Amino acid sequence: MAHDPSDDKLHEECGVFGIFGHDDAAPLTTLGLHALQHRGQEAAGIVTFDGERYYAERHHGLIGDSFTRQSVIDRLKGSRAIGHTRYSTTGGDEVRNIQPFFAEFSGGGFAVAHNGNITNALTLRRQLQREGAIFQSTSDTEVILHLMATASEPSFADRLVNALGRLEGAFSIVGISNKKLIGCRDPHGIRPLVLGDLDGAWILASETCALDIIGARFVRDVEPGELVVITDDGLSSLRPFEPRPSRFCIFEYVYFARPDSIVEGNNVYDLRKAIGRELASEQPAEADVVIPVPDSGTPAAIGYAQQAGLPFELGIIRNHYVGRTFIQPGDAIRHMGVKLKHNANRRTIEGRRVVLVDDSIVRGTTSQKIVQMVREAGATQVHMRIASPPTRSSCFYGVDTPERRKLLASRMSVDDMADFIRVDTLGFLSIDGLYRAVGEARRDNDAPQFCDACFTGQYPTQLTDMDDDRKVRHLSLLAEAGS
Amino acid sequence: MAHDPSDDKLHEECGVFGIFGHDDAAPLTTLGLHALQHRGQEAAGIVTFDGERYYAERHHGLIGDSFTRQSVIDRLKGSRAIGHTRYSTTGGDEVRNIQPFFAEFSGGGFAVAHNGNITNALTLRRQLQREGAIFQSTSDTEVILHLMATASEPSFADRLVNALGRLEGAFSIVGISNKKLIGCRDPHGIRPLVLGDLDGAWILASETCALDIIGARFVRDVEPGELVVITDDGLSSLRPFEPRPSRFCIFEYVYFARPDSIVEGNNVYDLRKAIGRELASEQPAEADVVIPVPDSGTPAAIGYAQQAGLPFELGIIRNHYVGRTFIQPGDAIRHMGVKLKHNANRRTIEGRRVVLVDDSIVRGTTSQKIVQMVREAGATQVHMRIASPPTRSSCFYGVDTPERRKLLASRMSVDDMADFIRVDTLGFLSIDGLYRAVGEARRDNDAPQFCDACFTGQYPTQLTDMDDDRKVRHLSLLAEAGS
Amino acid sequence: MAHDPSDDKLHEECGVFGIFGHDDAAPLTTLGLHALQHRGQEAAGIVTFDGERYYAERHHGLIGDSFTRQSVIDRLKGSRAIGHTRYSTTGGDEVRNIQPFFAEFSGGGFAVAHNGNITNALTLRRQLQREGAIFQSTSDTEVILHLMATASEPSFADRLVNALGRLEGAFSIVGISNKKLIGCRDPHGIRPLVLGDLDGAWILASETCALDIIGARFVRDVEPGELVVITDDGLSSLRPFEPRPSRFCIFEYVYFARPDSIVEGNNVYDLRKAIGRELASEQPAEADVVIPVPDSGTPAAIGYAQQAGLPFELGIIRNHYVGRTFIQPGDAIRHMGVKLKHNANRRTIEGRRVVLVDDSIVRGTTSQKIVQMVREAGATQVHMRIASPPTRSSCFYGVDTPERRKLLASRMSVDDMADFIRVDTLGFLSIDGLYRAVGEARRDNDAPQFCDACFTGQYPTQLTDMDDDRKVRHLSLLAEAGS
Amino acid sequence: MAHDPSDDKLHEECGVFGIFGHDDAAPLTTLGLHALQHRGQEAAGIVTFDGERYYAERHHGLIGDSFTRQSVIDRLKGSRAIGHTRYSTTGGDEVRNIQPFFAEFSGGGFAVAHNGNITNALTLRRQLQREGAIFQSTSDTEVILHLMATASEPSFADRLVNALGRLEGAFSIVGISNKKLIGCRDPHGIRPLVLGDLDGAWILASETCALDIIGARFVRDVEPGELVVITDDGLSSLRPFEPRPSRFCIFEYVYFARPDSIVEGNNVYDLRKAIGRELASEQPAEADVVIPVPDSGTPAAIGYAQQAGLPFELGIIRNHYVGRTFIQPGDAIRHMGVKLKHNANRRTIEGRRVVLVDDSIVRGTTSQKIVQMVREAGATQVHMRIASPPTRSSCFYGVDTPERRKLLASRMSVDDMADFIRVDTLGFLSIDGLYRAVGEARRDNDAPQFCDACFTGQYPTQLTDMDDDRKVRHLSLLAEAGS
Repeated sequence: MAHDPSDDKLHEECGVFGIFGHDDAAPLTTLGLHALQHRGQEAAGIVTFDGERYYAERHHGLIGDSFTRQSVIDRLKGSRAIGHTRYSTTGGDEVRNIQPFFAEFSGGGFAVAHNGNITNALTLRRQLQREGAIFQSTSDTEVILHLMATASEPSFADRLVNALGRLEGAFSIVGISNKKLIGCRDPHGIRPLVLGDLDGAWILASETCALDIIGARFVRDVEPGELVVITDDGLSSLRPFEPRPSRFCIFEYVYFARPDSIVEGNNVYDLRKAIGRELASEQPAEADVVIPVPDSGTPAAIGYAQQAGLPFELGIIRNHYVGRTFIQPGDAIRHMGVKLKHNANRRTIEGRRVVLVDDSIVRGTTSQKIVQMVREAGATQVHMRIASPPTRSSCFYGVDTPERRKLLASRMSVDDMADFIRVDTLGFLSIDGLYRAVGEARRDNDAPQFCDACFTGQYPTQLTDMDDDRKVRHLSLLAEAGS
Repeated sequence: MAHDPSDDKLHEECGVFGIFGHDDAAPLTTLGLHALQHRGQEAAGIVTFDGERYYAERHHGLIGDSFTRQSVIDRLKGSRAIGHTRYSTTGGDEVRNIQPFFAEFSGGGFAVAHNGNITNALTLRRQLQREGAIFQSTSDTEVILHLMATASEPSFADRLVNALGRLEGAFSIVGISNKKLIGCRDPHGIRPLVLGDLDGAWILASETCALDIIGARFVRDVEPGELVVITDDGLSSLRPFEPRPSRFCIFEYVYFARPDSIVEGNNVYDLRKAIGRELASEQPAEADVVIPVPDSGTPAAIGYAQQAGLPFELGIIRNHYVGRTFIQPGDAIRHMGVKLKHNANRRTIEGRRVVLVDDSIVRGTTSQKIVQMVREAGATQVHMRIASPPTRSSCFYGVDTPERRKLLASRMSVDDMADFIRVDTLGFLSIDGLYRAVGEARRDNDAPQFCDACFTGQYPTQLTDMDDDRKVRHLSLLAEAGS
Repeated sequence: MAHDPSDDKLHEECGVFGIFGHDDAAPLTTLGLHALQHRGQEAAGIVTFDGERYYAERHHGLIGDSFTRQSVIDRLKGSRAIGHTRYSTTGGDEVRNIQPFFAEFSGGGFAVAHNGNITNALTLRRQLQREGAIFQSTSDTEVILHLMATASEPSFADRLVNALGRLEGAFSIVGISNKKLIGCRDPHGIRPLVLGDLDGAWILASETCALDIIGARFVRDVEPGELVVITDDGLSSLRPFEPRPSRFCIFEYVYFARPDSIVEGNNVYDLRKAIGRELASEQPAEADVVIPVPDSGTPAAIGYAQQAGLPFELGIIRNHYVGRTFIQPGDAIRHMGVKLKHNANRRTIEGRRVVLVDDSIVRGTTSQKIVQMVREAGATQVHMRIASPPTRSSCFYGVDTPERRKLLASRMSVDDMADFIRVDTLGFLSIDGLYRAVGEARRDNDAPQFCDACFTGQYPTQLTDMDDDRKVRHLSLLAEAGS
Repeated sequence: MAHDPSDDKLHEECGVFGIFGHDDAAPLTTLGLHALQHRGQEAAGIVTFDGERYYAERHHGLIGDSFTRQSVIDRLKGSRAIGHTRYSTTGGDEVRNIQPFFAEFSGGGFAVAHNGNITNALTLRRQLQREGAIFQSTSDTEVILHLMATASEPSFADRLVNALGRLEGAFSIVGISNKKLIGCRDPHGIRPLVLGDLDGAWILASETCALDIIGARFVRDVEPGELVVITDDGLSSLRPFEPRPSRFCIFEYVYFARPDSIVEGNNVYDLRKAIGRELASEQPAEADVVIPVPDSGTPAAIGYAQQAGLPFELGIIRNHYVGRTFIQPGDAIRHMGVKLKHNANRRTIEGRRVVLVDDSIVRGTTSQKIVQMVREAGATQVHMRIASPPTRSSCFYGVDTPERRKLLASRMSVDDMADFIRVDTLGFLSIDGLYRAVGEARRDNDAPQFCDACFTGQYPTQLTDMDDDRKVRHLSLLAEAGS
């Protein structure tokens, strides 16, 4: 359920949070971001507004390391706040790239934070620069501010609508101006955003687990294409964009979202168990025991074991003290890598035919090491079962994916993958099986109910910038060290 | 499986590691200590010897934060090393109290690290001071060095035997001198110590998981009362102390040891599942679902569920990003405490009768909050099942226990405890049930097979210093800040 | 000769440096800024260009603390560089306010650093914001970049000319673009800027001492109103502004510049001695010994002593270990302040009539304490002589001056000032005496040869922003902590 | 007047301070150590006693960087304190080697700080180790504590006398026990120690400048061989050692002491001017101007100029921003070294015959560079005059001297030295001239009035340890990084 930057996973790049009208705006935002930490651990930022000035704090590292210091909380005055936690690196890792971003317009200030990725950001950036805009970051989010700055509408909400209307890609956005808290999801609703309520204060958050931690009530999802504007007079809902079919990211169910979140009406833990059951039906195995690759494979493994009538055992023990700074000391022992985080429990494995359940395979390098470790612990057979279809295409909607050619499934058949990771059998869930597990009869291939581009290569939006080499896209002429 | 310093658990105070004759002595010790991190997260130290000089590094914090820097590893030259990781605080948290300790005798150097607690250390310290010894730390371990310094035997091993012979309490010790790596367990063998082998290099470690991480072979336990001396000529085993009955700490099985370790021939995960099964037999419950308090209650919960024929579900989600520095920001929201680390998964709990399985209850404060959280998530009944007997007495053998009067079970009946933590029913495993689960027919009350003083108040050794007020014991006249 | 931020002095706010075409551009810039450290000790920045990318480093503190680390130097690639060191606080102390500033235009990058102050920056800023510009700092220097970004000329040099043409105030500027190093002084030439040569590489620097340290040859001053453009093809000189009379800051001679610098053809040390001689002629004293207030009063004191035929003695010893972080510990002893930095040498003072020579009096608080210290050391009489006229008006051209009403001379007669600082006699140099000492026959009151506004209140430029309250001028809606 | 660790000077290794009976003991000690900073800049420590416990703080770096933080001062409770500042490195630079040292004896605590060097420390250390002592540092000062610990006298003062009676070498010591503040100078009184009074509180300090800074009254020097014991009942003076002739370090006058200190009844600044006058008489020069090598050569240069009737000019400007961390960036420009700290003022030097006055020549490397710089600035002749005799022998009494063979004067004649540093003429003060300047008729060669071993090689004490190679003397078996 927790991500580790060294592991071989896809990573959600951001979580967002906003609150309007609560005396503890900053500490509540801190808690909310802490609950969203699985969506990004590299850096975080909070901007508050106290009716007169905006206060910003941006720090590298975990929320709990920086934002819980009393001095930091004390500087974040005011009853309105937005916050952002990020995995990394649309833009470099400089402090100037840590969101929320702030701009001072002639009519007042505006701060914005963003989960997703804008697929025509570079094109817009170049056009804005030609018109005289000076960018301070390399983040796609800053484009929104410059579009607003040069828009002619008098109201900030209108200028934001104008700006968002020119974007393509995935975006779930929170922003605050002198009078408003604004939340918005892109027309396809690719990334999640939910609405909550705490003692009359409105909350926006990427996932419901950020409501739970502060005891807030879950009100509803912000709808795809909806823009909510919260003021002292309450919430109003706008539909400023041309309607498009909902295409929620199905990988949020597979891996990104926290198991205790309610996403689009579904409990993630339940869905993952259902995925495991579906996987057991599609890809049974003659085996003695079902073992999850912890922690992300655990719910699916429980479902698999229940469906298959096999015992579920914690055969791989995870070391939770692996911080982000753990570098394997000394060249001679670099190959021990995976053991820093996992150890096979020999007595549970020895002499047994093992079903190993994981959520996905990206590069395959970690799978290879875990299989080797399980074999060395005495497994007589290893049957790998993956709780999603093969990951074959890059995501351009705010997920950190390796280049396409590094995705194992993009260059190998399932049989070759089985050889590569050295398992006896390897089975993936089918795309229809995945759709079934999340409650659809099957995938509608003409109008897919979800964004499943990482499995199918079918992208719901244009990808204007991606004609360029991806590396070039975010290049700035300026290189500056992080701190 | 992981400890958290803020939680309401007993905490092992130390893990030790030693290696003799490997070119990568320092990085291997780093990895070994990393695997023993659950035995102590406050500070760690490594001393190496390169045939000429000793090299020491001592740092606060996790192994992975300090000891993985190349500069640190590079300073730790030589093919022999000992290391120590500690939870805290026999002695204060100054760097001078971080083990291993080193002393330069007229015949050469000696470094020592220690897991356990010496129950006559203060008495010996005062006597040594009267004889002219100057102590640099407030740790009980330094007593060993001064006893050695003033001993008259020519060999270091003999001086160590002389010194250890004057100690009471629990100690598993590793030491290096100019020629030797030495390991020793106290006559009762209260704390664990195992022997391993990696490519011909001897290893000593608190648990086998520290062998696994470096790919070393588990050779055997060091026996209670055994002192092993490793030189270039190989290993020799001494039995220098008067034999005493083995009294291994049974709480190592319940909570301290890592589930993947083999302790005294038993796999800890298997034992914990057996404990869960025994608990289900002794303390059944009319319920719909078995939910562990993660992560320490998980193996017992799996055993309980299997025995009881109830579904096992991860109904409480743990946030792994709670670092040691997370302070709850802001006074107004301090009561949210437990939610920083845990969140109930409402959909798994709502409308159900829940069996909550945890390993032990210390103060009861965390149990209270978790039960409340589970109730708020909609559980119709909560049946708490504890995988050990009530914890009624302090440990004086190297475990951080609160004062006796703060132990909930020392001042309440089980019924009162049930009221206090607000559960429908509360059931503990019996002491005989615990003994059965770990392979004995029952507890031999005249000569108990384990140290179970925390449950029974029967201490296997004298407690000379404990007649004094415990606070006074470690007082030094000098107060110096940590860093 | 060195400034201390705690003392009661006016402080130059900036020093600039630039180099074009040298393999060691970054380390040479570091050395140059080190030599200019007396012009600003709060923070420093360097931007280099390697033909492809720009590299920036910005750090708080002294050059020697940050920029001498090999890792910092290594990141600053390329053979062209500009650097900036600053005293403080046009704009706040955030990293984002540390110069040089960089902007990426559609035609390439441009970095700029600035010594001086733009007196219509706020007015321009508001206008630019209305047109859609987003400011990232609160510094007046950023205005230049936005004026360039929105200018329509194709060449960067032309856009810079356009931008500078809209400024009022004092500015000595260095900038680099993809092809050029540019230097410019405002039409009055209020702040200094010199041109040097090192092995064929062109250098720009605030003072010649920055040439000396790297062994560069002093070529000439950049002229008031001159803009020099250095490319691979050499240097070309432009005169893009309407000509104005030269009004070099006379206080550079009195205090700001380093004594070993050649400023506008004059050696500063020589001028200060000449000032001292003039002071002795205008303001003689019946006394036994001449003692400087170290270090800034020393050259004038030497001149005074020579002219007066009195012995010169170091009667006040300066403690050079007073770093910027020395806070007087403990409330009870706060009044000892001045002794942290100075101690009277009793044997030199006792029983004597002392002439104390200092360069200027700002608030008078330090003078008061030094006089008291000299009296306590046994001086029978204290005759204070000041090597400049009374400082009566604020500087708006890049010097940190207290508000006008805090300037002692703005609210007291010389006699009252003598009473306030408790001297027997107090004498200032006359404005004409100062002009004579620096080589003029007398001050031309219709067209003063220098900017002497701090003494006379006659400002050479418009002060558009200063109609507003000074505090308001730099207010941003955003507050963000420094690091 | 200030030392710089990178320069080619001898360096005093320590300053000490003690106070008894003042509520502000810790901040006053901080101020006192700040005034003694020229005696050691590497690290400092303070130990206080509040009647019950001792409180210690030890930090690397300047007093003003660490000891002025309120949190540090607040931890140092009590009305009695001793402090120590050190240049470096008898013993390594680990925190454990920072004085004062503390030991807890069976009868109470004792803390001690020491200026000087014990020339039989290693011999004593080995003997104590054989008897069972465990050393925690590599400092000679710790020997004193172990000698006290194993002494049999009941009173701490008596045990200290016993311990000191076994030492050879130079020591000025301050110590506190539960009841006393103790100060002592070795029988020859090689290092200084003075007694002061502040509002009834007794003060001990290395120099009177540490009294001046806190406004304390100078009472008298502690006499050679005197031990003063200060209790609540007042001061008592003991003469526990066999009397020996006074041999105060004459180099304290030449360079070590601060010019404003009164040392053995003499004002250091006055003595240095007298030395300069004597030098002018012995070593006149046909020249136009006298220029000091700042800052240490300045008083002698003033004396020289006055005696010779030549103008005194500040022809070399010192950059005071050279911190200890300034590393010359980049290999290519490493030869610029000296210019980081000094710059010749060309206009003062050009076309002139210059007398350069410095206090001493150690290795000659800096002199060489300064002469070159003065020549490049256009001096037609350079006449170097040194305000002391040639430094030919190492100091073993607490001064950091290079090995004898690195002392330029130990391997070259004066003529060869003149060639080496490339001056037209080079003149040193004679040893009798130095004695005359400090008030003696001449040096009594049979019973010299001062320790002048660095000039004459005549050491006033035995040097037991120095038969060994100096490197070996301080070697410990343990190497541990500084922080």
